[in-house]
Amino acid sequence: MPHLLLRGVPAEKLQAVSGPLAEELAVVCGCGADNFTMSCMQADNVYGYEGDASFAFIEVGWFERGQEARGQFAETVTNCVRRLGVREVEIVFHAYREDSYYINGKPAG
Amino acid sequence: MPHLLLRGVPAEKLQAVSGPLAEELAVVCGCGADNFTMSCMQADNVYGYEGDASFAFIEVGWFERGQEARGQFAETVTNCVRRLGVREVEIVFHAYREDSYYINGKPAG
Amino acid sequence: MPHLLLRGVPAEKLQAVSGPLAEELAVVCGCGADNFTMSCMQADNVYGYEGDASFAFIEVGWFERGQEARGQFAETVTNCVRRLGVREVEIVFHAYREDSYYINGKPAG
Repeated sequence: MPHLLLRGVPAEKLQAVSGPLAEELAVVCGCGADNFTMSCMQADNVYGYEGDASFAFIEVGWFERGQEARGQFAETVTNCVRRLGVREVEIVFHAYREDSYYINGKPAG
Repeated sequence: MPHLLLRGVPAEKLQAVSGPLAEELAVVCGCGADNFTMSCMQADNVYGYEGDASFAFIEVGWFERGQEARGQFAETVTNCVRRLGVREVEIVFHAYREDSYYINGKPAG
Repeated sequence: MPHLLLRGVPAEKLQAVSGPLAEELAVVCGCGADNFTMSCMQADNVYGYEGDASFAFIEVGWFERGQEARGQFAETVTNCVRRLGVREVEIVFHAYREDSYYINGKPAG
């Protein structure tokens, strides 16, 4: 964690920059780069995604880190994805409850 | 936004009706049809999805619009998906926080 | 419902144990095994999933059943997935609001 789920971002393009992106996000979050996961979801985008790489929708699941970190995180991800050629980027953050997050069977909080 | 994520709905069937569905939902939401996205998730449905098109699970991510709009939205989507031949339809709405939603790096609220 | 969305768990392996897993979870939840769905999401795991079956991330969508049931549910799923050869298992529970969950067009609460 944090977990990034991406739609509308080509996996092979993200792969090439995922290491540096994780390093940048690790600075924002004050954690190790090995805490992050990034998955490009396979989906048939039936409506609203016109053409290749015109729109990306990204979900971030994490424990809440406050507005400043959230804004820096969003900016970092947005800049990275735009450099991959995507024009429009929307990001939603899901704040997990620690008592509802289990790591190897044990609650995180 | 709103974003519809669908499981158990064949993409090619939804494609054929997605334009009119977006128009109907735009009326419910009082927004433009070009605000919507619809994605059919690719997944291996390992348990609980018996046979083709027997059960659809649909997630809607949006900013809360209240009970009346939510009910009309659910009814509109349910009727549309049932006309595609799906028997059981379950829909969950996720209300996004505006301060946790970023459009091209800027918070929505 | 409950709905299990799995990433990093091979579908064919889960398939083989999904019936007994649903039976175990039904006891934890005090409901029928036929209420559950399990879907293995197809995704390109670009970062943080090193090697096959080293890390699984599982999302559970349900109506809140309290800490004891949640802990037993997490333990049951974790044990099952580890027996399939996955080393690290993280599970997040999403508590749905009943007034935001629609079954065949009717709200659940």
